Amino acid sequence: MNWSAARRVIFGTPLPTEEAAHQRLPKILALPVFASDALSSSAYATQEILLNLALAGTVALHVTLPITIAIAMLLAVVTISYIQTVHAYPSGGGAYIVASENLSRQMGLLAAAALLTDYILTVAVSVASGVQQVTSLLPELTQFTVPLCILVILFVTLANLRGVKESGVLFAFPTYFFLISVLGMIVWGVVSRHILGIPPYRLPQPPIQATTALSVALVLKAFASGCSALTGVEAISNGVQAFRPPESKNAAQTLTAMAVLLGSLVLGISYLAQANHVVYAHGYDQESAISLVARAVFHNNETLRGMVLVATALILLIAANTSFADFPRLSSILARDGFMPRQLSNLGDRLVYSNGIILLGVFSSLLIVAFHGKTDRLIPLYAVGVFLAFTLSQAGMVRHWLKLRGSGWHWKAVINGLGATATGIVLIVVLIEKTLEGAWIVVIIIPVMIWMMDKVYQHYQYMRSQLSLIGYEPEPPSPHTVLVLIHDVHRGVIPALNYAREIASDVRAVHIEVNPQHTPTLKMRWEQWGDRIPLVIIESPYRSLVGPIVEYVRQVKADHPRHIVTVVVPEFVVTRWWQRILHANSAVLIKLFVANIPGVVVTNVRYYLKPPQASAYTNGAPPR
Amino acid sequence: MNWSAARRVIFGTPLPTEEAAHQRLPKILALPVFASDALSSSAYATQEILLNLALAGTVALHVTLPITIAIAMLLAVVTISYIQTVHAYPSGGGAYIVASENLSRQMGLLAAAALLTDYILTVAVSVASGVQQVTSLLPELTQFTVPLCILVILFVTLANLRGVKESGVLFAFPTYFFLISVLGMIVWGVVSRHILGIPPYRLPQPPIQATTALSVALVLKAFASGCSALTGVEAISNGVQAFRPPESKNAAQTLTAMAVLLGSLVLGISYLAQANHVVYAHGYDQESAISLVARAVFHNNETLRGMVLVATALILLIAANTSFADFPRLSSILARDGFMPRQLSNLGDRLVYSNGIILLGVFSSLLIVAFHGKTDRLIPLYAVGVFLAFTLSQAGMVRHWLKLRGSGWHWKAVINGLGATATGIVLIVVLIEKTLEGAWIVVIIIPVMIWMMDKVYQHYQYMRSQLSLIGYEPEPPSPHTVLVLIHDVHRGVIPALNYAREIASDVRAVHIEVNPQHTPTLKMRWEQWGDRIPLVIIESPYRSLVGPIVEYVRQVKADHPRHIVTVVVPEFVVTRWWQRILHANSAVLIKLFVANIPGVVVTNVRYYLKPPQASAYTNGAPPR
Repeated sequence: MNWSAARRVIFGTPLPTEEAAHQRLPKILALPVFASDALSSSAYATQEILLNLALAGTVALHVTLPITIAIAMLLAVVTISYIQTVHAYPSGGGAYIVASENLSRQMGLLAAAALLTDYILTVAVSVASGVQQVTSLLPELTQFTVPLCILVILFVTLANLRGVKESGVLFAFPTYFFLISVLGMIVWGVVSRHILGIPPYRLPQPPIQATTALSVALVLKAFASGCSALTGVEAISNGVQAFRPPESKNAAQTLTAMAVLLGSLVLGISYLAQANHVVYAHGYDQESAISLVARAVFHNNETLRGMVLVATALILLIAANTSFADFPRLSSILARDGFMPRQLSNLGDRLVYSNGIILLGVFSSLLIVAFHGKTDRLIPLYAVGVFLAFTLSQAGMVRHWLKLRGSGWHWKAVINGLGATATGIVLIVVLIEKTLEGAWIVVIIIPVMIWMMDKVYQHYQYMRSQLSLIGYEPEPPSPHTVLVLIHDVHRGVIPALNYAREIASDVRAVHIEVNPQHTPTLKMRWEQWGDRIPLVIIESPYRSLVGPIVEYVRQVKADHPRHIVTVVVPEFVVTRWWQRILHANSAVLIKLFVANIPGVVVTNVRYYLKPPQASAYTNGAPPR
Repeated sequence: MNWSAARRVIFGTPLPTEEAAHQRLPKILALPVFASDALSSSAYATQEILLNLALAGTVALHVTLPITIAIAMLLAVVTISYIQTVHAYPSGGGAYIVASENLSRQMGLLAAAALLTDYILTVAVSVASGVQQVTSLLPELTQFTVPLCILVILFVTLANLRGVKESGVLFAFPTYFFLISVLGMIVWGVVSRHILGIPPYRLPQPPIQATTALSVALVLKAFASGCSALTGVEAISNGVQAFRPPESKNAAQTLTAMAVLLGSLVLGISYLAQANHVVYAHGYDQESAISLVARAVFHNNETLRGMVLVATALILLIAANTSFADFPRLSSILARDGFMPRQLSNLGDRLVYSNGIILLGVFSSLLIVAFHGKTDRLIPLYAVGVFLAFTLSQAGMVRHWLKLRGSGWHWKAVINGLGATATGIVLIVVLIEKTLEGAWIVVIIIPVMIWMMDKVYQHYQYMRSQLSLIGYEPEPPSPHTVLVLIHDVHRGVIPALNYAREIASDVRAVHIEVNPQHTPTLKMRWEQWGDRIPLVIIESPYRSLVGPIVEYVRQVKADHPRHIVTVVVPEFVVTRWWQRILHANSAVLIKLFVANIPGVVVTNVRYYLKPPQASAYTNGAPPR
C-alpha cells in the first residue's frame, strides 16, 4: 500500500520491541541530555526580570542583579533537595511518583497535572524564545513568528515520531556550543570592562515610560517571572537509570554541575544586562534581551552576536525536544496506572509513544497560536506548574524521610522541608503575581485535568469490575436462530445461505417487501432454490428497508429472549470502485442499526464478482 | 431519533405505496400541468431573437416578427407531428420510448441523454428567467441574481422531495394568470394603437453599436435562439395517461390548444416588441424584454407591468417544477431498464424518486453558478437537446408507421417525416450557430452520458450473468474454522467464545503478542477460563495488531482452502460517548482488513457494559 511506503519515508521502518534496550550515559553526555532544558532557561529568565522592572522605568533596572541572586539561592536550595531525591529514588523519582507514594493519589495526580502542563509550556516557551533569537538576528522574519514556531513544532514532532536517540552528539553539540558561547560572552564582558578597561558600548536607549513605582509587588512580580530559570531542574531526578553505575552518585554530580552552570549563566547574563543598561520593555521587545546583551558586550560585532543567538536558539530547540520525551513518558505511566486513555501507553512502530507525541505537538501549537508566539506572554503561565511540582515533590520527600527514618533522616527531612517551604512560598508569590497575567488558565486547567483523570480511572476500574471473571458461572449454550436477509434470489445469496446453514439449524430467510409486485416471482424462485429454508416476507408499506428489519429482529428477540440471533447480510463485492455507486449499499445501514440490538450478531457474507472478460456480454444474447 | 423528526417537518410523514394511485385530469387542469413549460418559453423566446438581432444594430430589429412567424410555423409542424404520437402511444410516448422501440437502443439512449440535459436546462433557464423578471421589477436585487436562483431551486427541490401534487389549483392559477395577463397585454397593445389610436410610448432608446451586418447567418442565429420557444411542446405526449377518457383525443385537443396559445403569445410579444422598438442588447440586458414590452404597452404603468412580470415569474417557476417531475421519472425508467444506477428507481418515503430530484437540483444549480444566472448565456445550450429529442422522436414515428402500416399510414408517415425533417434542419442550424456560443458543452456531454449509460448497462448485465442460478450445482457443506481474537481474558470475551463454540466445533483463540511480558499471565488465565479451546499466540515484533492477524488468517485459508473461516472479534459497548476514547477501537481496523480476504467472514460479538451505579467504586477497595 502507498500509505505504508509513505510512512516509512516519513517515520522510518518499524522497529522490533527488543531494540528498546536502555543505553547508559557517561556524565559528559548525560549533562546535555538532561540539562538542556534547565540551561536554556537562562535565555529568557533575565529577559523576563528586565521586562517586569521596566514598568517602573530605567531606574528600576538596578535591582535586576539582586533579584537574580535570590533566584540563584533558590536554585541552590532546590538542587540540594533534588540531590536527596536522586539518592532516595535511584529508579527515577519524578514528582508524580514521589507525591503518589508519599502523599496521596490526589496529590500525585496534582503533581502529574502540573508536570503535564509544564511540559506543554516548555515546548511553547522554548520554541517561541528560540524563534525570537532567530528574529533578533533576522528582524525581517519577525512577521512570520507564528508560522515559524508551528513549523519548528511540526519538525520536532515528526522527528520524535521517528524516534530521536536521547544520546550522543546530537544533544552534546548544541549544549556545549551554548555553554561555550554564553559563558565566553560573560567572561569577555567582565574581562573587557574590569581588566582591559575597554569603555562600555552604549546601546541606543529607547525612551521608556514608568507606568508604576518600584514597589515590593513589582520586585516580586519580576522575581516570579525570573523563576522560570528553574524549569527543568527536576529532569535528572527522573532519569537516574540512564546514568552509568554508580547511578545515584553520578546523577547527583551531574545535577550539581548543571546547577552551578545554570546559576553562572543567569547571574552572568543579569550582571551584563544591568552593567550595560540593557532595556527590554513592552514596545521594544522585538529583539531578545540576550541579543541586546551580546550587542553591548561585543560592541555590535554581528558575527559574535550571531554565534550567541544561534547557540541559544539551538539549545532551546533541544529543550523543546526534551519535553517530547518527558510528556509521552509521563502520559504512558499515567495511562498504565489507569488515569489516562490506554492508547497513550502503546508503543508505536518506532518504539515511541506516538499518541503522546502528537498530543504534545497539538497542545503546544495551540498555545503558540493563542499567544501569538510571544515568549513574554507565555512565561506567566509557566511557573505555576513548575513550582507546584517542586513543592509536591519536596513535600513528598519530607514524608518519605519521616516514614523511612534511615540514618540522618532528621537532616534530610529538614533539607527537603526547606526546599518544600521555599518552593511553596514561590508558588504562592507566582499565584498572586501572575494569575491575572494569564496563569489563571493553568489554575483552571489543572483541576479540570485532575477531574478528568479521576473520571478515566473510575471508568477503567468499573470496566475491570465488570469484566472480572471472579464468580463467573459458565452458562448453558443458548439456542441459535439465524436470519438471512434476502433481497432477491440469485447466486449472490448462496454463500450467505450456506453459511447460515453451517452455523445453525434454525435458519430463516427474511425478505422486506419494498416492491410487492416482485413478491410472486420471488416466492416462485425461492421454491426452486431456497432449499426448504422458510421464507418470511415482511411488508414495508413505506418502502423502508431498515425499519422493518429492526422491528422484526426485535420481535424475534422478544419471542425467544434466550436465543442468540445472527442476522446474515449477503453483500456483493464489485471489482471497480465506480460500480459501488450502482448498488444501493443498504448493508452498511442495516449493520449499523441491527447491530445495536443487544444479543444480536450481524454478519456480512460476501460474494465476490469476478472481473468481466472483455467480450463477456457482446457475444449473443445477455445471459439470464 | 431527532433526524426522523426533522425530516418529518421538512419532507412530511412517509406515505404508503398504495397512495400512488393516478389522478385523471380534466382538460382545463391538464393544460396548466402539461403546458406551463411550453407556454413559459414565450417569456424568453422573443428576448433571445432581439438580443441576437441587436448585434446588427437597431435597424435589424424589423426582422423580429418574420423570424417569429417562421418559429410559429415550425411549432405548427411539430404540434401536428406530436398529435400523431399522442394517438399512437396512448400509454405515453416520450422520445426515449419512441426512439428505443422504433430505431435502436443507441438512438433511444441518445434521445434519453438529450431529454435529461433538456430537463436540467429547463430548470436553469426557467429559474434564471423568472429571477430576471423579478429583478426587472426590483432592480436593486440584480446583484443577488445567483443566490436568488439557488434559493428558488432549493425551494423547488424541497417541495418536490415532499411531493407536489401534479394537479389542481396550484398549477392552474399561475398558468391562467399568465395567459390572461400576457394575452391581455397583447390585445391592449393592438387595440390601443390601431383602434384607439393612442400614440406609442417612447422607450428610452439606448445607443447600440452594430458589430456585424444583418446577414443570413445572423438571422439563422436569431431563429435558432428563438426556437427555445418550442421547449416543452413534447410534454403532453409523455402524459396521455393523465387525461380523462378518451385519453388520446383529450390529450390531442389540449396539445392543439397549447400550441395555439403558445403561438399567439410568441407572435404577440414579438409584434409588440417590434412595433414599440424594444431594444434588448448586451449591456442593456438587465431588464427583461417582456418587461420593456409591458413598459411600452402600458405607458410605463408600474402596476400593470408588475402584474405581467409577476405572472411571468410564477409560470416560469411552475415550468421549472415540471422538470422536477420529468427528470426523475425518465431517470427511473432508465434505471429500471438498467442504464442508470438502480437507486434512481427507488420511490422515497413520500412516493417520489428522491434521488433523481436531488440530482436535478444539484446539476441545475451548478449551471446557474457557472453561467452567473444569466438567461441569455444559458439559452444557447438549450435548443440542442430539445431539437435532438424532437428529431429522434419524429424519426421514430416514421419508422413506426412504416412497420405498422395501418389505415392512412402513408399520410401519417409523411406528416411525421415532415416533422423530423423540419426539426432535423433546425437541429443542424442550432449546431452550426450555437456550438461556439456554449452548446459545445451539450455536444460533449451527450455522448459522455451515452457512454456512461452503456457502461452501467454492461455492468448490470454482467451482474445478472454472474448471479444467475441457471446451472448452479449445490456444493457440499464446507468445514468451518472459527478464530476468536483474544486481547485479554475477561468477561468481555466470554460471549465471543460462547458464540464461536455455538457456530462451529473447530474453534481457536488467537492472541497477538504485542506485549510479551503479559503472555505468561494470559496463558495462566487461559488455563483457567479458556475451557480447553486451543490458544494460538502470534508474535508481533513490531507491535502491530492488524498485520499479524491478516497474515495468520491468510495462512489458515491457505492451509485449508475449502474451509470457511470466521474471525470473531469481541467488542465492548460502553455506556457514554467519551468512554469510547478510552478504548482503542482496533475492532474496526481489523474488520476492514480481514474482511477483504475472500472466504473469510468477520463477526463482531458485543459485550454490553452496564452503566455504573453512582456509588459502585467509592465503597471499599476497587473490585478485582
